[in-house]
Amino acid sequence: MSRPIIGITVSVEVNQKVGMTEQKVLFVSQEHADGVIQAEGVPLYFPFTTDPKLIQEYVEQVDGLILTGGWDIDPQLYGEDPLPNLGDISPERDRAEMALTKAFLQAGKPILGICRGHQLLGVALGCTLYQDIGSQLPTANEHFPKIPRNHEMHAIQIEEDSKLYQILGQKQIGVNSMHHQAIRDYPSDISIVARARDGVIEAFESKQYHNVLGVQWHPECMIEETIHAQKIFQWIVEESKKELVKQL
Amino acid sequence: MSRPIIGITVSVEVNQKVGMTEQKVLFVSQEHADGVIQAEGVPLYFPFTTDPKLIQEYVEQVDGLILTGGWDIDPQLYGEDPLPNLGDISPERDRAEMALTKAFLQAGKPILGICRGHQLLGVALGCTLYQDIGSQLPTANEHFPKIPRNHEMHAIQIEEDSKLYQILGQKQIGVNSMHHQAIRDYPSDISIVARARDGVIEAFESKQYHNVLGVQWHPECMIEETIHAQKIFQWIVEESKKELVKQL
Amino acid sequence: MSRPIIGITVSVEVNQKVGMTEQKVLFVSQEHADGVIQAEGVPLYFPFTTDPKLIQEYVEQVDGLILTGGWDIDPQLYGEDPLPNLGDISPERDRAEMALTKAFLQAGKPILGICRGHQLLGVALGCTLYQDIGSQLPTANEHFPKIPRNHEMHAIQIEEDSKLYQILGQKQIGVNSMHHQAIRDYPSDISIVARARDGVIEAFESKQYHNVLGVQWHPECMIEETIHAQKIFQWIVEESKKELVKQL
Amino acid sequence: MSRPIIGITVSVEVNQKVGMTEQKVLFVSQEHADGVIQAEGVPLYFPFTTDPKLIQEYVEQVDGLILTGGWDIDPQLYGEDPLPNLGDISPERDRAEMALTKAFLQAGKPILGICRGHQLLGVALGCTLYQDIGSQLPTANEHFPKIPRNHEMHAIQIEEDSKLYQILGQKQIGVNSMHHQAIRDYPSDISIVARARDGVIEAFESKQYHNVLGVQWHPECMIEETIHAQKIFQWIVEESKKELVKQL
Amino acid sequence: MSRPIIGITVSVEVNQKVGMTEQKVLFVSQEHADGVIQAEGVPLYFPFTTDPKLIQEYVEQVDGLILTGGWDIDPQLYGEDPLPNLGDISPERDRAEMALTKAFLQAGKPILGICRGHQLLGVALGCTLYQDIGSQLPTANEHFPKIPRNHEMHAIQIEEDSKLYQILGQKQIGVNSMHHQAIRDYPSDISIVARARDGVIEAFESKQYHNVLGVQWHPECMIEETIHAQKIFQWIVEESKKELVKQL
Amino acid sequence: MSRPIIGITVSVEVNQKVGMTEQKVLFVSQEHADGVIQAEGVPLYFPFTTDPKLIQEYVEQVDGLILTGGWDIDPQLYGEDPLPNLGDISPERDRAEMALTKAFLQAGKPILGICRGHQLLGVALGCTLYQDIGSQLPTANEHFPKIPRNHEMHAIQIEEDSKLYQILGQKQIGVNSMHHQAIRDYPSDISIVARARDGVIEAFESKQYHNVLGVQWHPECMIEETIHAQKIFQWIVEESKKELVKQL
Amino acid sequence: MSRPIIGITVSVEVNQKVGMTEQKVLFVSQEHADGVIQAEGVPLYFPFTTDPKLIQEYVEQVDGLILTGGWDIDPQLYGEDPLPNLGDISPERDRAEMALTKAFLQAGKPILGICRGHQLLGVALGCTLYQDIGSQLPTANEHFPKIPRNHEMHAIQIEEDSKLYQILGQKQIGVNSMHHQAIRDYPSDISIVARARDGVIEAFESKQYHNVLGVQWHPECMIEETIHAQKIFQWIVEESKKELVKQL
Amino acid sequence: MSRPIIGITVSVEVNQKVGMTEQKVLFVSQEHADGVIQAEGVPLYFPFTTDPKLIQEYVEQVDGLILTGGWDIDPQLYGEDPLPNLGDISPERDRAEMALTKAFLQAGKPILGICRGHQLLGVALGCTLYQDIGSQLPTANEHFPKIPRNHEMHAIQIEEDSKLYQILGQKQIGVNSMHHQAIRDYPSDISIVARARDGVIEAFESKQYHNVLGVQWHPECMIEETIHAQKIFQWIVEESKKELVKQL
Repeated sequence: MSRPIIGITVSVEVNQKVGMTEQKVLFVSQEHADGVIQAEGVPLYFPFTTDPKLIQEYVEQVDGLILTGGWDIDPQLYGEDPLPNLGDISPERDRAEMALTKAFLQAGKPILGICRGHQLLGVALGCTLYQDIGSQLPTANEHFPKIPRNHEMHAIQIEEDSKLYQILGQKQIGVNSMHHQAIRDYPSDISIVARARDGVIEAFESKQYHNVLGVQWHPECMIEETIHAQKIFQWIVEESKKELVKQL
Repeated sequence: MSRPIIGITVSVEVNQKVGMTEQKVLFVSQEHADGVIQAEGVPLYFPFTTDPKLIQEYVEQVDGLILTGGWDIDPQLYGEDPLPNLGDISPERDRAEMALTKAFLQAGKPILGICRGHQLLGVALGCTLYQDIGSQLPTANEHFPKIPRNHEMHAIQIEEDSKLYQILGQKQIGVNSMHHQAIRDYPSDISIVARARDGVIEAFESKQYHNVLGVQWHPECMIEETIHAQKIFQWIVEESKKELVKQL
Repeated sequence: MSRPIIGITVSVEVNQKVGMTEQKVLFVSQEHADGVIQAEGVPLYFPFTTDPKLIQEYVEQVDGLILTGGWDIDPQLYGEDPLPNLGDISPERDRAEMALTKAFLQAGKPILGICRGHQLLGVALGCTLYQDIGSQLPTANEHFPKIPRNHEMHAIQIEEDSKLYQILGQKQIGVNSMHHQAIRDYPSDISIVARARDGVIEAFESKQYHNVLGVQWHPECMIEETIHAQKIFQWIVEESKKELVKQL
Repeated sequence: MSRPIIGITVSVEVNQKVGMTEQKVLFVSQEHADGVIQAEGVPLYFPFTTDPKLIQEYVEQVDGLILTGGWDIDPQLYGEDPLPNLGDISPERDRAEMALTKAFLQAGKPILGICRGHQLLGVALGCTLYQDIGSQLPTANEHFPKIPRNHEMHAIQIEEDSKLYQILGQKQIGVNSMHHQAIRDYPSDISIVARARDGVIEAFESKQYHNVLGVQWHPECMIEETIHAQKIFQWIVEESKKELVKQL
Repeated sequence: MSRPIIGITVSVEVNQKVGMTEQKVLFVSQEHADGVIQAEGVPLYFPFTTDPKLIQEYVEQVDGLILTGGWDIDPQLYGEDPLPNLGDISPERDRAEMALTKAFLQAGKPILGICRGHQLLGVALGCTLYQDIGSQLPTANEHFPKIPRNHEMHAIQIEEDSKLYQILGQKQIGVNSMHHQAIRDYPSDISIVARARDGVIEAFESKQYHNVLGVQWHPECMIEETIHAQKIFQWIVEESKKELVKQL
Repeated sequence: MSRPIIGITVSVEVNQKVGMTEQKVLFVSQEHADGVIQAEGVPLYFPFTTDPKLIQEYVEQVDGLILTGGWDIDPQLYGEDPLPNLGDISPERDRAEMALTKAFLQAGKPILGICRGHQLLGVALGCTLYQDIGSQLPTANEHFPKIPRNHEMHAIQIEEDSKLYQILGQKQIGVNSMHHQAIRDYPSDISIVARARDGVIEAFESKQYHNVLGVQWHPECMIEETIHAQKIFQWIVEESKKELVKQL
Repeated sequence: MSRPIIGITVSVEVNQKVGMTEQKVLFVSQEHADGVIQAEGVPLYFPFTTDPKLIQEYVEQVDGLILTGGWDIDPQLYGEDPLPNLGDISPERDRAEMALTKAFLQAGKPILGICRGHQLLGVALGCTLYQDIGSQLPTANEHFPKIPRNHEMHAIQIEEDSKLYQILGQKQIGVNSMHHQAIRDYPSDISIVARARDGVIEAFESKQYHNVLGVQWHPECMIEETIHAQKIFQWIVEESKKELVKQL
Repeated sequence: MSRPIIGITVSVEVNQKVGMTEQKVLFVSQEHADGVIQAEGVPLYFPFTTDPKLIQEYVEQVDGLILTGGWDIDPQLYGEDPLPNLGDISPERDRAEMALTKAFLQAGKPILGICRGHQLLGVALGCTLYQDIGSQLPTANEHFPKIPRNHEMHAIQIEEDSKLYQILGQKQIGVNSMHHQAIRDYPSDISIVARARDGVIEAFESKQYHNVLGVQWHPECMIEETIHAQKIFQWIVEESKKELVKQL
């Protein structure tokens, strides 16, 4: 029996050029793949596309989806005009990931959203965002401190009646933190399952989709440091294995 | 029936950092994927690995392989010490791509090598390289002129009794050019099927492996400009479809 | 019959040097010319001059005028001292464009003002500006978000009894946005014909001059993306054709 | 009676970006226009185009052409592959200027080629170039010394039986120098009318086209310093006036 | 009879290095000397020194003093600790210029203070400064706008019963503006003789020393543009000539 | 009899790379060693380690400890989440220095804390910090002015019943200032022995440990300028000599 | 019994500044210390000094010496004027390390020289250097290829009758390579014990001093990768332990 | 009796801008002034001028001249076209210094030429230069090694029957070295009084002018390090004192 394929989304850095004519360079960290590998999944990265037929191919041939971190999400996607301190946005990536996310949701396949991926998954499910925590929620702590990527910087509290608690087996963990946006409002079928001490939302689950999870921190940077980072990746691989079984 | 999955290798840029601790950033151009998409293949990018079990998974689940461009190849892989003007090398990428290439060769699956990928495929099959054309072959033209990536810069002559001629249907085409290394010596079961006017090797095939092809130029940059660039990608997708058929 | 010549103003970048002694480099985007070309006009760019005789030659030989985007306008031109957050100003360009604008107005020839050109046209007709929206109108949205130049970032509402409505045939369109100044006060013979959701003025017309139009956004960046961008350029070419007819 | 319109070609700097998506920025120095203005011409800059209808409009409405300096010319235009030390090339500019040049030649309208413009005019008339003086003609002096743009750096000798001698009235002048390419071979209907002390070609005329002139140096940088620079611009304006007369 | 020698102070830029060991580079603009030359003075620049004997030599051999612009003044010199937004300070330059200023004052020789020189002269005579106008006087206009150095940016009002009025013969002039500090408090023997529209002090004189003048703007940048800039330099040369006469 | 060994901690600059793979570069200024040398101590720098056995070796073989300046301290070490304006932190250095500090405290050996070292010593003894003086104590003066490192920028008041007063023999001295964090709260066995005019804590001692001292300024930069800087280093060497005597 | 103290020399980077006045920053990699730590030595870094009394203290209190890599050595130290391609030199470091080296040699204490340290030890013992391998020994391979620091790039051959062979137990090993200078001539009491394939000297020993060793490569970068790197550090710690024993 | 005034020439750095319009920044090192101060002269720096009247004022009021280092000299000044590897030239500085030099020579006043000043003085007296030692005299040593400015890098041999020998009292000294040009040919009334070991000219005197001296090295950088550097400055001050005496 084959291991499940986990598809990972990539970032685009339009300012990076190799030749004289602009080349659309995609990048991602090896870290996400290493997280999948240690959990015995088969990682592969997606290019950008909004072609429905190709997306349908991906939904059929890929067992689980990881939505990765990156620049800000276009606020028009949750019905807002841009506010001061909105960061760089990537409309093409927004379109490609939103199409992929909706196709995986519709197919009932598992999704793990990390940082921007957590926010994009939230928007796909009806949430709105703080365009910039610093200016819109001035009482919040700093969520983009200048720290090593693998350093646990603050604690989060986890709801006991959550899937995340089942995965981690802990009511509190320490996490790294590299974001300036966060989920603000959410519909009733979203369960907020973790928050930072200042109230910022750190993880959510869906009542409608049993196998999707969004985490605001970056477990892929702490695979070697903490068991709880490994468990997040084990969860997405395990959920994806079930899809594999279904296909057979 | 599903379309074939074409796996594309990625570059590593170790000097690019996002956080304070070094992050291993992988990058590739969307262009390779667009080449596969227009030919109706399903493109996905590989992470780095030398894990034999994971590579076996890739060989089983991926139908064709594209080896992409990048930095220089470690000359130790073809039995040489470094010479002056050798460029940056990426030992980890060398190891990962060499393992993947040998596994695909062994499985008899199709491979398209582009630029560095063409050279790496050559080395895997017993070729040696010019570490630097400029200093080792001073009569050669400039093979890394400062041109737009999609500009045809010089002509190449194609052997009529070759697969490449069957693919392109032309004895001469114009190609772009962005390389400072090239294949030098080659074993007898390698057929040189295209050369530039100055004699530099521009494409080869294998007598032993019917479905592998190396091209020194960058067809992925000229998908929109020339039909011959599209035909290269159509070839790898067609060859990969045959693997798909075999699996059923 | 010849097509109309559309004269386009250029930017100056005094900090850009080619040799050791400062060279006054002018620049403009090809985008403006492409907008004119698709509308079947004949685009040419003006150099800088305030020489009345030469300006008279331009008014006689050029059929229509496009005032392009760029740095801030000297606030002394609308009777103010500089405030904090005023950006770079280009006094020489101010002088040259103001002289050209007044000469075209006097000759009754058509003018299209884009972004800074819209503001400069407004100042020529008696308007004042916000020197910096962010500090002088803190309730406004972000009007210089970090977006691709061709991305529609917010909606604008268009007055139905306006020439702009006649041109576009729509009460609302989405526009890109790259400015930190905007028209503040305006005299009674100026009609404000479009505003953003936050009230910022996005387009105006003149009751006195029937063939001048100012738009705050950048239609030249969206020629390929939207029909409404093309229509703006078609308008200036059509108005200019009338001048051509008059000359015959 | 109107003054003649002198059309000036522009450079493209594809690496210069204003927004996040690449903008094709055109630039040129005000110096060329100032040269035309002091000679009582009407300067305007061309955008890029290869559209035959638009080029026909330009030929009809513009009286004289100035081909300006810039990056290297694609050696394929004179039948060569790229050699080491070839500089940046701009294929799109090559195409646009070559189309414009050929149309002006065919219409018998006057042309002044400066530096790259001199070389491009030469290539249009059958010349070949040194791709790089330094490596192909090692006995030559330095033709791109680090000097102020307006500094006379070396002498040139002018043929007495030439139009250039008629224009300047001097057998020797001092010129600035900012080029690494130069005309090498030329057909019999080209007259070499000035050379530097090391033999490098500094100016040529055409026996077939009486009103075209190519100069390797940059008179537009020395308008204020020397009368001979002014005379070059007076020549192109005077030749263009004759076209104006013809039209009436 | 000789012309008077005008000594001009220099700036220090400690971060500018030529060799590997730090070299103390002094710099000044040619503009100050050109201002003195057009007024028929003999300009020379001082090095840094606090040696009383050498300063005495300077007082004896130099007829007039110009204190030039530069970085901020150490607030301890007017009895304050540093506040946020204080800029770079140059203690060594402070010491050297303060010693020179006091020696010239004591000798009764003429002094012109420009920008920082105006502030330093003020501090030598008992004034205090705003360490940063923007944060300490938030109602003020921008006094360091991003303008060309020779551009008149705002008007100043001049007292009619002042030496400055006698020099310029105007009650209002336009000045450039490049400072973020300004004189705040002043003793009773200082006369404020010019202010900007927002009240910021633009020029002062001393009741005790009849031949010293401080101006907040930069006349040396506008010698070619305005007669009032020339008059300031004519004043210091004329005052210095009187010293020359005394010596004879 | 040997002189005492004074161990000095080093900084880590993780962003500084020498080869292609990240190298952990340590740095420190020669100034600290020169301070120890003039006081006749034997300076040596520590690498990073948290290995208890190696730290025990250091405690045994090294007579005194100097904790040097550097980046911010992780606020979790004094029980806080990160606030906006927290600077870069170095978790590995925090761990290594905290382990070393506690081992030296336990062994009763002398410690001098400078700037960050003063803050780290404070945290080890139960203090908390202002994460950023500017935002948390807006009435404070600027404590990181842009001054030469060896410039006395503000005065501090010293408690007469303190060890620091015994060392320096002065109630007030002038100090340089290069910090944006400072000690905020402190336990009862800490004595604050010097403050700046704005109340910021500039030095402390411990009632429990008689031979530890923290100073917020940088005496190592003023060894040549002031006797009080020399006296600080003489103190730590003298205290360390006593340890040497004990060992014999 | 205490472990031996291993003193490690540091680099100086005079161009790196922290404040406005130049600070002499010393730096070294943690790697050297980690090499000593894994071998159970006690690593400490030296500051710069040429003070004979202080150096005597170091010789008495420190058991072994590691001379580290860095910039080029002043050729005057081996009797030559500078040649083209000589790199940066650090005269102050040369003086400090030469004094330290000679004192350790005189005291008979063990020394390990690495790269520049190997060359400096050689010069102290009478060797001369290639100032630049590339220009003085053009047949040599590239000894500063662009490789990861921890990558074995070429093989070296080890003499069997050498101490190095006793340490490593191998006749050939693979080493990394980051140098452009190398030992050229050597006196008769120096034994060359390893060479690269191109003849470049890679290690030497002294017949006079039994416990000194110079290696041209960087074992400190390969501690984790190869056992032979660990053995080099174990050797210097073991030799230093003998000094410790002597002292008791 | 007053001390003599020593006038020092300045460099121009046209690429250094302070405001938006180019400012002509002059710079010089404090080192030259310190050299004059220690010798009890009165240093002042010249601005740029070629105005004969002003130069006459300088000759009358200034007692001695120091020509300082800087960029390359225009080869046209010694009758050559530019060769490859000629460096940056400063035509305006060439003109100003040549005018000043000739005026001081004519007045019989003393001149010290340093590096470029030594070469310029040589050219004024009929010498020619190597435009680039490296390419024109390939057997020479490196004369611009990467050394600290105050480091003696090679020896020079001094002629015993020279004024330089009288000044220094030594047949050989060590000098620093920062030049890539040098005197090549010289007329018969020039005496070469010092050479480097490779034959490069290091100092010259004039048989016609008894009080001028050119030195190729930089004594101003070694005032603190060597007595011979001080003696050079003492010589120019002593010679200038004689002028002072004459004036009385």
